[in-house]
Parts: sequence; structure tokens; C-alpha cells
Amino acid sequence: MTHTINVKSNGNSKVLQCEDNDILLKVLLDNGYDINAYCGGQGICGKCKVKLAGNIQEASQADKNFLDESEINQGYRLSCMYKVDSDLEVILNIDEDITVMTSGHLTEFDIDLDLSKEIISISDATTENQLDYLKRIYEKTGTNKINYDNLKKLTDLKTEQKFTVLKWKDEILEIQTDNSVKDCYGLAVDIGTTTIVMYLLNLKTGQEVDISSFYNPQKKFGADVISRINYTFTNKNGTVKMRESIIEALNKGIKELTKDKKLGPNDICKVSIVGNTIMLHLLLGIDAITIAKAPYVPVFTDELDLKPEKVGINIHKEGIIQFLPSISGYVGADIMGDMLTINIDQLDGNNLLIDIGTNGEIVLNSGEKIYSCSAAAGPAFEGANITFGTAGVSGAISSFKIDKGKYDFSTINDKKPIGICGSGLLDMIAEFYKYDIIDSSGRIKEADALTGWKKEVLHKYKEQRAIKITDKKDWGKAIYLTQKDIREVQLAKGAIAAGIKILLKEMDLEDEEVNRVFIAGGFGNYINPDNACFIKIIPECLKDKIIQIGNGAGTGAKIYLLNKKAKNRAVKIKERVKYIELSVNQEFQNEYINSMNF
Amino acid sequence: MTHTINVKSNGNSKVLQCEDNDILLKVLLDNGYDINAYCGGQGICGKCKVKLAGNIQEASQADKNFLDESEINQGYRLSCMYKVDSDLEVILNIDEDITVMTSGHLTEFDIDLDLSKEIISISDATTENQLDYLKRIYEKTGTNKINYDNLKKLTDLKTEQKFTVLKWKDEILEIQTDNSVKDCYGLAVDIGTTTIVMYLLNLKTGQEVDISSFYNPQKKFGADVISRINYTFTNKNGTVKMRESIIEALNKGIKELTKDKKLGPNDICKVSIVGNTIMLHLLLGIDAITIAKAPYVPVFTDELDLKPEKVGINIHKEGIIQFLPSISGYVGADIMGDMLTINIDQLDGNNLLIDIGTNGEIVLNSGEKIYSCSAAAGPAFEGANITFGTAGVSGAISSFKIDKGKYDFSTINDKKPIGICGSGLLDMIAEFYKYDIIDSSGRIKEADALTGWKKEVLHKYKEQRAIKITDKKDWGKAIYLTQKDIREVQLAKGAIAAGIKILLKEMDLEDEEVNRVFIAGGFGNYINPDNACFIKIIPECLKDKIIQIGNGAGTGAKIYLLNKKAKNRAVKIKERVKYIELSVNQEFQNEYINSMNF
Repeated sequence: MTHTINVKSNGNSKVLQCEDNDILLKVLLDNGYDINAYCGGQGICGKCKVKLAGNIQEASQADKNFLDESEINQGYRLSCMYKVDSDLEVILNIDEDITVMTSGHLTEFDIDLDLSKEIISISDATTENQLDYLKRIYEKTGTNKINYDNLKKLTDLKTEQKFTVLKWKDEILEIQTDNSVKDCYGLAVDIGTTTIVMYLLNLKTGQEVDISSFYNPQKKFGADVISRINYTFTNKNGTVKMRESIIEALNKGIKELTKDKKLGPNDICKVSIVGNTIMLHLLLGIDAITIAKAPYVPVFTDELDLKPEKVGINIHKEGIIQFLPSISGYVGADIMGDMLTINIDQLDGNNLLIDIGTNGEIVLNSGEKIYSCSAAAGPAFEGANITFGTAGVSGAISSFKIDKGKYDFSTINDKKPIGICGSGLLDMIAEFYKYDIIDSSGRIKEADALTGWKKEVLHKYKEQRAIKITDKKDWGKAIYLTQKDIREVQLAKGAIAAGIKILLKEMDLEDEEVNRVFIAGGFGNYINPDNACFIKIIPECLKDKIIQIGNGAGTGAKIYLLNKKAKNRAVKIKERVKYIELSVNQEFQNEYINSMNF
Repeated sequence: MTHTINVKSNGNSKVLQCEDNDILLKVLLDNGYDINAYCGGQGICGKCKVKLAGNIQEASQADKNFLDESEINQGYRLSCMYKVDSDLEVILNIDEDITVMTSGHLTEFDIDLDLSKEIISISDATTENQLDYLKRIYEKTGTNKINYDNLKKLTDLKTEQKFTVLKWKDEILEIQTDNSVKDCYGLAVDIGTTTIVMYLLNLKTGQEVDISSFYNPQKKFGADVISRINYTFTNKNGTVKMRESIIEALNKGIKELTKDKKLGPNDICKVSIVGNTIMLHLLLGIDAITIAKAPYVPVFTDELDLKPEKVGINIHKEGIIQFLPSISGYVGADIMGDMLTINIDQLDGNNLLIDIGTNGEIVLNSGEKIYSCSAAAGPAFEGANITFGTAGVSGAISSFKIDKGKYDFSTINDKKPIGICGSGLLDMIAEFYKYDIIDSSGRIKEADALTGWKKEVLHKYKEQRAIKITDKKDWGKAIYLTQKDIREVQLAKGAIAAGIKILLKEMDLEDEEVNRVFIAGGFGNYINPDNACFIKIIPECLKDKIIQIGNGAGTGAKIYLLNKKAKNRAVKIKERVKYIELSVNQEFQNEYINSMNF
């Protein structure tokens, strides 16, 4: 038996067919709808809710776990748990404006490109100078290699005729007889688990021309890397689908970045890519399952220079796609980008680098030594697993303060609050801890122990102790910080704090011996450093040494794109980095438990 | 109006259609028949004769220039001059067994390969050793690069599982989980203007497994390089057709070389190719027209390492096709092969190298200096332009001596004489000069000046003075050496002798200061060195210093295939070689005229 699903999305309407008992989430995903499914469709994140009309089923237990009564009454259901048994109408509202940290604090580096377009002409051949045409071009351009397909073009070139040579290092990539040459462009791409940022740069001037940022479309297959890997091996052609979804998004991004500038994909000659190790594997269609399970071994970590056709990214067909090197399965090329950005190979003293995303990657260098580790923080700081958590979208509460018993918060784009993003979450916990509503073990105090406004903010949310942040009357939506949310943050921050401790111990350093603390990543850039120290993510004594570098990974990709020495630097840095596996580190387990408290 | 042509060829029969006035040669070539057309269809070589039946046209002047009356009466006509105007029957007999010089005097060199297949297993990954899979394989195989397509295979490999790695230098070309590994094989290919030789070698043992030799199928487009180049630019898609014909022949050769050995094209992982510069251009489908006209500049001369798909040669798809470097438009990679074979980079003293084919390429080295030139000898020594000339096929008179007024000659494969090949031609001229039937200016003496048997051998052939070699009564075919033939040889030998003189002058050396004379090439190997000196191709004082090295070009290709140092040696030799263009050298013109006489 087939059913008809009428999907209404942002004013558009489309009719789908599905079989009896098909999972609604799967039907929507298969038809190209971009539904959040952080947990990969297991009914445990509550993010895939959709509004239904028609002959709707009763709410399931999973629905009740995540949806409040009014939502259930309005027809909201978790699509991952909904087996279609009748014709339905689905109302989607999936366009969220996302605020992605795209800026980075560029360190000083020279634009020193290895790729260029030149107009050249070669001299007349004579019987006194019978040098072959290829050698003449080599001499003129300082090259000594040529892409084979260009050889055939050489006889068409009349001597003294001008033509355009696209060269990369010592290799001629393309010869064009059309001399209406545009500049070369390049893309620096930062593939995050949650969001993707693409920077379009002019490769002659080094100037940043435009930026495009959007959700990683793979999030529909799972919010975190592990659920994505799960998807790849529990679904037919899972890895292929995972790859296709991101390639499609990147090519769409290229189209959009170039369209209003009289440019085309063909004008982009070079791409540098950062991302965590799993993102890079999936982008290449390489199974990453060995990274998901002990002993967490990736297929590759080396830097790669690939031809566009091999990757599937639609740029100049003779262009180059470069992947920055990764360190290990859980310290990826994104962290290499951070390390290039802070010039880790030129820093004196002892330097700590923390990139907080789903995982907290931590790097500590002291002289020649560089140690790194990855602390499984979980996606709490990215809004997942938090009851009213959200990514950094419009309306997310991004900072929070309490002043004389009154909340003072701001939302992204000053929109009505719709949820809490990472930086807001951290602020809330720091503030409520400061005002003693949360104790140092993370427990929300009982009403009896509180007075005045502190007592008033206490609430229950779905049987749990919770703190009210907004109410429906004033703000159009009731938002709570629940006990479970605080526990999630404790797990996340404990992991990072313990990771830092382990690296310091390995290097035999005391907290106060650290000279600089670089914080990278979107979340890291928006957090209040004082609060981060106050709840002891970062040792308190380092409060004044914190430098927020923004999207260090993306900045690193730009450096890699624009500076020919970057590749060699990255390879050398990689050789120096020792990776410490925390999952089997007994000391880490102890530190982790000790670090949960505030 | 269309006509029907019924082609009978070696017992097979095929019916073709053509338009009124189509050139018969073109119709036959277009339908895949392998007709000799040395002059490219200009009616000036006489090699494209075919036997016709039906309503045949009268013999044209061109027919009469090349065919005797009995042939004309039997229905032979030059197909290049025959415009089809009625239905016809064509009788072809185009299969000639060819004797190609395939052996070479191998100098001592180590088999030192850069390509190998290994069965390896990698160790279990542990949390103490999280090295990525790729790095494990690199460590095990001493590599540091990988073909991208193999990356995807890596996750399929279980640790401790055995698998086969095909590597080239520091690069992994292929990983196979099938461990029923055969050895790797390689091909050394010598692409001559007239003949092609393919050597199949085992790349583990270095052993030569088999040889295949056949006519260069491009000969149907013209006998020499210039007529081939003419074909490329006077015919639509000429270069493409030229390329396709040789690629097809090479792939057929590979099929035949591998079929009875339980091998397939996939077992061949490496190919090294020598040939003159024009052959290499045409093999890659690169227009060589700039080599044909002053200032004779080739598109490329450098060594090349190409992927099979780029060349079109059907071997292991990740294999390597290597072209040896050339020196100039007229001193090609074949001569580089000769130079590797004689170890020119390790020889003491002054050494002369002569490779006699259509062109006579000459190399002279003295200490660090290496000079080279190319003397346009013409195809006389390859049997073209000689009235009864033929290549080294069965029945070709290949040596000739006069003993007490009686001819003593031998033919290839002891078959009935059908014509004269290069070495026989040279012997004849030396002998008749020795016996004073030809004077030192190359003129066949008049009957009045001769007596006895010498007088008897004098004949006329098509109005020309000629010397009878065989008669129809005794040998089934009358063969003559004509005055024109002698002139052709004088032009050829004069060019080579003058080239040698120019190089010696440039090096400021006297004839007797040369320590060794290496003679390479099929023709060079079969000639009688004494006779070559007697008619002054080579200075007489060097008679005892001649070393015949056989197919030095092919041997050089084998060295390049088997020894990884050869490429670098060739590149360095190329840098040392100075090419001297004879066509604009006034001294050469003078020497040429002086060198025509015997």
C-alpha cells in the first residue's frame, strides 16, 4: 500500500509517495529535505520534529520525551519514529539563518603563491636555436613539467604569439591561446561537522572576495562524527551518499560564490581543505569506520594534492585540491589549520591551543615538543543534547548575565529567543553557579535552600529540576535550563579540562607556566573567557593569557592556499606532534572525574 | 555512381563499395588493407602495385615507370594512380615475413628495477600504535606516495591480512587483495619508421620472454618520416589516423606477446619506448609538422613518464609508459638508446656511433663532449627508391660477392631472390666497384670498356644502364641493379660520410684518432664492415675499429626498462649532447659533394 505525503515547506508544496510503514524521516531525507537528525534517527535527540496534519498517530513515548503538550497537540511528532500508515500533510520550516564564525585573526604572513597565470610569448625558432617548443615555454615560465594534454596544443602555437600559461610550482597545468585572462581564484574550505565555511580568495592579490557558510548537509545523517560513521555502515551505499551530499553542497557553494562576480568554477584553480579526520575521509568516500572503534586508526593522515576529478569538486579541471595533513583520527587537519594560524612552529614559551567543537582538541607545545589529544566533549556546546539547545542561529541566546536578580541576555541577530547556543549555555551555568543556584557538584539546589528571585526561577521541566530562562508570556516561548543540560555541560567541560591537565603533566608543566592560551572555533570565539575559567574549563590562573583566534582552522586553510611554504611547514609540524590517546589513559579517567565539578 | 571492388587477399574475399573516381589506394587503406605506399601515394615509389582483374584501365606513365611489361599484362597497376571507374577485382598478397634485427649486444648492466610487486602484511593497530593504515603500508614498502584510487581500498584490508602491493619508485600504484600474484612484466619498444620491435621482459628476473616484430603500419601513409608528416596535414584527421594505426598495432602486439603465456595486458606494468623524434610525436598524436620544415623544431624532446590511458597503450592501468629523451628533431630517443647501450657516459677515448636507417644519425664523443648530427641518407638502405629494393624480408638478397666472375649471394631465409635489401645493395656496389664495373664516380661503365663476364652483366632496364643480378630463367625473377640505384646509394652514403667528417672537424679530430666505431641498426648489423669502408661510408682507416651493436636502440630501451639509473643517465647524456644542424652547414654541403664518390 502506498501513501501520499504533501510536504509544505516555506510556501512551496510537493507531493511524495511512500510505502506503508516507511519511516517519515527517511522519506523526507531521501527526497532531499534537510531535516536535522542529530542522533541519526534513533529517537534520542528530538531534533527531527515536524508538524503533521491529517490522520495523525498518537504521540509515542519518544515524542513525549522531547515535545511538550502544546507541541503534540499542534501535530508535532519526531519524524524518525513515525511510521507512515496513512496519507499525510507535513509542514516544514527548515530554513534557519546560521551564524558561523568565519572571521579569523590572521597572523602576519606573506602572500607567496605557487600558482599563477602568466601571459607569455616565445621567441622565433631558428636553425641556430632549435630548442623544442616545450623547452622554450619551460625557460620562459621557470617550469619543467607539463600536463600531457597540453603537449598537443603546442604545435598550434605560432612563435611570437602570446598565450596564457597556468602554472603550479614547476608544472604547467594549462596553456590557453585565449589571452583575455582573468585572475586565478582559490577556495579555502573549512569542513566542520556542523557547519561548512568557504572563503573565495583572489590568488593574485590574496584578497578575500567573498565567504559562504552553511550547515554541513551530512547533519541529516547524524549530528556527530560517530553517528555519521554509523550511518555509513548501517545503510546501503552509506559512504557514497555521505560523500555525495557534501560534494553537492560544496559545488553549490562554488556556484553561489562565483555567480555574481562574472566568474565561473573554471576560474577557481586551487582549493585547500581543512576538516576533522573523519570529515576528510567521508569527503573522499573513504570508510572511516576504523576511526570509530578502538584502536581508532584512520586510513590516511598525510596531506594530499588531488586532481578535481578525483574529488568531484567542480573547479578548473587542471586545478589542485589540497588537503592539509591531519595528526590522528581525532586531531584533524582543522587543528593543523589552527597550528599554522598561531605559527606554532615559531612561538617561544609554552603554548596551549584549544579548539572546542564536538570534540575538544587540545595542543600544547614547549620548545620542539608538541603534544596533542582529543577530549570527547560531546555536542553539548553545539546545542545538541541540550533540551533547548540550538546551534548559533538567529534567536539563539548567546550571552547571559544576571544583574541584581534580573536576567540580561542577548540573542543572535536580536531575534526573539528560540533556544540556547553554546556560549549562552556556558554563561548561564557560570552565572547560576556564581549566584549559588547551582552548587559546585553541578546540582540545581532545592527550593528550600533558595530564597527570593532564586527560588522563583526554579521549575520542573518534564519531571526534571530546571531553571526557567524565558517564559511564554513575555518572550513567546518558555525556555529552560534543565539538570540534565548542566550534567551534559559538566561532561563536556570535564573532558576538556582533564585533557589540558594530561598534556601539562606529560610535558611536566604547571598551569601557570603556560604563556599563551589560544582558543579556536566558533564556540571558542563567542565564549566569555572569564566564565570559561570560572567554571574551570581552562585553569583559572590563565584567565589573562587567553587569545581568541576565531576560525583558526579556516584561517589555516587560507594560509595553506596563499603561501607555498605552508605545506612544508605543516608536514614538519605533523612530524613533531605526538598524539596522546585519552580513551585508554587511566590518568585521564581520574582527571575527568575530578574535573566535572565547577 | 558507386563501384564494387572485390578484394581477394590470402584466400579471403571481401566486397567494398566506392565512389566513381576514388583513388584505389585510398579505398584499400581506408578499409584496413596494409598496402605499401612509401611515397605517400605520389606515384614515385612504385611500391603500391596491386593486381587487378575485370575491366582494367590502360597502364599509365607511372605504371610504366615501375612495372615491366609482363606485370602490366598480368594486370598490375599502381593503386595510388588508379581512379576507380568500374567494378573491379583486386588480388592482394601483402603478407611478407619480415626479418628485423632484434638482437643487440647487451653491455653489462645490473638489473636494478624501480618497479616491483610485493606481498606484504601489516601489523595489528593498537591504541599504543595508532599509525594510520597508509603509513603502515608506506613503512612496510618503503614508499611515500599512493595513487588516490587505492585509498578507498585500504579500509577493506584487515590487519595482518596479506595483500599485494605494486610499487614504482616511492609510489604505490596498486593494492590487490588477490595474492595469487604473477610476476610483473615490461615491454621495451623500438618504434622504427619501417619496423617495430617489442621485447617482453620479466621484471623480476630481467629475462627476455619473447619478441614480436612487425612493420610499422604507418608505412601505408608513407615510407619516410617526411611523407608521413605530409600525410598528417594533407588529410583530415591525419595525425589522429597516424596515431591510431600505431596504437592499434602495439596493442595487437601486446595481445600476441602475452596470449600463450597465461598472461594478459594487465600483467605488463611498465613500457619503455624508443623511436625517432617524429615517431614519438605521432605516437602521442602530436603534430610533427614543425620538425619537417626549417628550423626543424620539435614540440618536445624531454623524457616522459605517462599513464597508459594517456597514451592508449593497453597495459596495467596504473602502469607507466616511459619515453626515452630525444636530442633534437632528427636525433631521437632511438639514438639515446644506442648511447645507453654503448655506455657513452663511461667510455674513454674518442668514439663514433652511427645508426643507419632512413637517416644516418651520427654521434661522436670525446671526453665530456658529445656532438651529434643527422645526415639525410634517404631510404635507399631500407630498400625504398631502389628499383628492386626491398626491406629485409624473406628472399631479399642480403649479401653479395663475386668470385672468379661468378656471383655468390645469399637471401634471407634462403628463399628464392625477390629483391635486394640494404646490406646486399651495399655489397653489390662494393663488389662491382672492386671489379671496376662501376667507376669511382659511381657510373656503370660502358660496354666498350668491359670484357668477358663483366660485359655480359651489363643490361638496360627501362632505358637505364643496369647490371643484371638474377635472370628469370635461373631464378624465376629478373633482378637488376640500375644506374639510378647506384646514384641513390651514393647520395645516402655521401650524406653519412660527410656527417662523420663534420663531427670530426667540429671536435678537431683526425679520422685515425677515433678509438671505436659503433654501428647500430638493423642495416648496420648486416652490412659487411669492410665493404662499408671500401666504398667510404666510414673512413677506411677505422676498418678494424668497427663494433656492430645490433639493435642498440632496442637494447637501450631494455636498459631503461630494467635499470632505474638509466633515466637519470639519459637525462645527463642529453644535457651533454650538442646537436649540429647539417642542412644549413655550408661545410657539410661541400663535404657531401666530395663524399659521393667511392
